[in-house]
Amino acid sequence: MKNIALIGSTGSIGTQTLEVIRSHPDNFNLVSLGGGKNTDLILKQIEEFRPALVSVAGKKEADYICQNVDAPIKVYYGREGLNEVATHSDADMLINAVVGSLGLQPTLHAIEAGLDIGIANKETLVTAGHLVTKKAREYGVHLLPVDSEHSAIFQCLEGNHQNEINRLILTASGGSFRDKTREELQNVNVEEALQHPNWNMGAKITIDSATMMNKGLEVIEAHWLFNIPYEQIEVVIHKESIVHSLVEYCDKSVLAQLGTPDMKVPIQYAMTYPQRLELEDTNRLNLWETGTLHFKKPDFERYRCLTFAYEAGKTGGTLTTVLNAANEEAVDGFLQGKIPFLAIEDYIEKALDHHQAQMNPDLETILEVDKDTRAFIRSQLG
Amino acid sequence: MKNIALIGSTGSIGTQTLEVIRSHPDNFNLVSLGGGKNTDLILKQIEEFRPALVSVAGKKEADYICQNVDAPIKVYYGREGLNEVATHSDADMLINAVVGSLGLQPTLHAIEAGLDIGIANKETLVTAGHLVTKKAREYGVHLLPVDSEHSAIFQCLEGNHQNEINRLILTASGGSFRDKTREELQNVNVEEALQHPNWNMGAKITIDSATMMNKGLEVIEAHWLFNIPYEQIEVVIHKESIVHSLVEYCDKSVLAQLGTPDMKVPIQYAMTYPQRLELEDTNRLNLWETGTLHFKKPDFERYRCLTFAYEAGKTGGTLTTVLNAANEEAVDGFLQGKIPFLAIEDYIEKALDHHQAQMNPDLETILEVDKDTRAFIRSQLG
Repeated sequence: MKNIALIGSTGSIGTQTLEVIRSHPDNFNLVSLGGGKNTDLILKQIEEFRPALVSVAGKKEADYICQNVDAPIKVYYGREGLNEVATHSDADMLINAVVGSLGLQPTLHAIEAGLDIGIANKETLVTAGHLVTKKAREYGVHLLPVDSEHSAIFQCLEGNHQNEINRLILTASGGSFRDKTREELQNVNVEEALQHPNWNMGAKITIDSATMMNKGLEVIEAHWLFNIPYEQIEVVIHKESIVHSLVEYCDKSVLAQLGTPDMKVPIQYAMTYPQRLELEDTNRLNLWETGTLHFKKPDFERYRCLTFAYEAGKTGGTLTTVLNAANEEAVDGFLQGKIPFLAIEDYIEKALDHHQAQMNPDLETILEVDKDTRAFIRSQLG
Repeated sequence: MKNIALIGSTGSIGTQTLEVIRSHPDNFNLVSLGGGKNTDLILKQIEEFRPALVSVAGKKEADYICQNVDAPIKVYYGREGLNEVATHSDADMLINAVVGSLGLQPTLHAIEAGLDIGIANKETLVTAGHLVTKKAREYGVHLLPVDSEHSAIFQCLEGNHQNEINRLILTASGGSFRDKTREELQNVNVEEALQHPNWNMGAKITIDSATMMNKGLEVIEAHWLFNIPYEQIEVVIHKESIVHSLVEYCDKSVLAQLGTPDMKVPIQYAMTYPQRLELEDTNRLNLWETGTLHFKKPDFERYRCLTFAYEAGKTGGTLTTVLNAANEEAVDGFLQGKIPFLAIEDYIEKALDHHQAQMNPDLETILEVDKDTRAFIRSQLG
């Protein structure tokens, strides 16, 4: 039995993590749960999974939970609350499924508490990959990828050796605007941007897919998770999202992980690693039904965010913190209707240009840069 | 340094095995070599690789080698000679690259001598898979697949567990007549049959690809190598020969091995396992250059040999020996212009119908059934 702490329980990854726990009651047990403002869903989750501890967005939500909960449970809120969830003394593993760099501190605390981390929250690694990976090595805990691409690479690396890797190849669906030119992107709206062709995900990551920033963040995530230089990480557009990513070895042999697009597969693998468990509730991949798989090279001028991500990653230091914070704020601005789609790129570029990178920053510096970048973008958005 | 014994040195796999040895002089050393009638090539191979022992087809070829060789070397011939090559006291590994069930006895002897076996000779496993795998377990030696499909599966199994396998999926190019109907197959000739679209291989395997018997033999080979029931082994037509095969696990995650079609990759992996070495002289796979990968379900009525192979495999016993021997003789008859292409299937079917399967046969029985089947087919061919 593995005891799970989960933060981000009401989002897409969070609810699917609970589905995995539900389908394997003999293997997993939820001990603590962190959500946000969706208190009605959180109440249902408490009722079903009976965690010992819960955290919600703020005091108002915590009071609502206390008044309505029908189980003995400790109720926390805010950033401190997330840390409580992530360090529950009975937990073996933290699934970090929050969105944004909010996930950084709970992750660091969980590592210090000796928990393995299932990491769906790529922003944590983008903003402070050097701190997280260093601390994980120090405390001897596993960082287990939950992103489908990184889970694919992780599975393709099993039984092989780090020094035999030639390159990692991340596949990208191209997102909701894959077939649009830059000219056509000038007039797209939020509703169109939220229509992802293959994956049903949260709003922020769906917009990131449309700008290709999602793939840029994943390149940086892959750099940290697998300790591979940026020069050996490539991206290929694969519109069917069947091949989830690939690894080329020094003998030119390429391993790939495939499947129908379903996040439960990588979520469950992170939780069962190094074993696998049955997963009934997902579609088998029959390649003859898919018929054809397409691949093409990404156009770095078409997808400026991919260029920004490689450049920020290669420079390193606080620049990836800026990249991530600027992106979070610009996407938020777009989702609120304050700026057009293509302006997301412009604001990120402004923030990167405006910043003087500091190398090997500590946590305090990262949090400060994150805050300053958000303030800078917000001041621009007006 | 790994000492290699090689049988089938002048064929396609044999010469490529020598290329691998040549490119890694610090890792591999050829100690013994078995060839057939191509004595001029064998002399060149002796001159370059300086093995201590060689075996050739017959006395005539042995005399020719003795008269022309410019190195101290023991010269043998015939089946006994192959056994000497396969059991050389300095050898660590036998690469069995002969064509046909001729490879069976040297393989059994090499296992008894404690050598790991790199097995390109699928007929050995088809005709006597139960004996070979049992003996390998008994002597604790590795059976390392050299066929590209089985190497792919072997690579996809690393770091995973046998009891988590859902199914093995072998890819098939479809061979030289992939796009022809059965009607169009009635008038094809030997020259057309020998034009494989993706792989440059020997005559027998190229014809086997055209009839799809090659994939049938590989299904049986996979059954024995990986200890998986026939119900969990599938075939998918994939005309580009880029995805070399796949494994589906119980969580529906699918691992695949890919690469440009080049047998040096699986040959070298068998020789370096569990490590990998650089392989300079092969093309990298860039999926955006390939662009599109196609998959379709095989038509078991179009490819009768695939049906025969599954049926023979499921029945088991001596029936796969019959399948293999009848196929070898019928293909030989076709290559000699004695029978038309589609008659290959008819003769195999006759041999299978004519035979009363014996379960769990010993070596003597297998050799006898092999001999009887060949005699039966030859008598039919006239």
